[in-house]
Amino acid sequence: MTEKVQHDRVTCSKMMLPVQDALEILSGKWKIPIIIALTHGVKRFSDLSKEIPKITDRMLSKELRDLEMNQLVKRTVYDTFPVTVEYTMTEYGQTLHEVIEALAKWGYNHRKRIMQD
Amino acid sequence: MTEKVQHDRVTCSKMMLPVQDALEILSGKWKIPIIIALTHGVKRFSDLSKEIPKITDRMLSKELRDLEMNQLVKRTVYDTFPVTVEYTMTEYGQTLHEVIEALAKWGYNHRKRIMQD
Repeated sequence: MTEKVQHDRVTCSKMMLPVQDALEILSGKWKIPIIIALTHGVKRFSDLSKEIPKITDRMLSKELRDLEMNQLVKRTVYDTFPVTVEYTMTEYGQTLHEVIEALAKWGYNHRKRIMQD
Repeated sequence: MTEKVQHDRVTCSKMMLPVQDALEILSGKWKIPIIIALTHGVKRFSDLSKEIPKITDRMLSKELRDLEMNQLVKRTVYDTFPVTVEYTMTEYGQTLHEVIEALAKWGYNHRKRIMQD
């Protein structure tokens, strides 16, 4: 194996792991829609349920727990009657927005390009 | 449904489609490794095969065809003996690098954060 290929293999795998970590976090059908819905501020469970087409309450609840576990979403329970539960992106979760915007920008241009063909 | 929820639902789905388009292009086990390997310039099939751990020649060939079909990768055949086949990112394919860098940057920090916990 030439030195160059060896060098590139190291560079390649060094970048690959973080990229795959990030894609793992964003993968699945519902993570992105939930994160996008929470971009616009605090939301109640029922708001999210209305905004995200076709998600079941069971799935929404599961996905929110996953995001909470990854410290991306914060869940706050208010002692009202009936109890109010609100969700918001954590400061850390907000760092994902840059990634999602890069994906959205590229995807938007790609869609335009394909439709022109 | 309140006007705000209605508005957010439109914003949400408007952003969702392009993001999902982009993720679709990058999904699967091998697309990202191939794109990253081609970041560093023109590569022969055999270079790619050596650099990307565990990919079979059959899979590499299939994935390169997919990327070529999406106009992301260009394949050039040189009339040498034996025939030389080289792959390179197209100008359009290079626009993906910004997206991949955003993913890599986020994933890198995420890994660091998780390891500190």
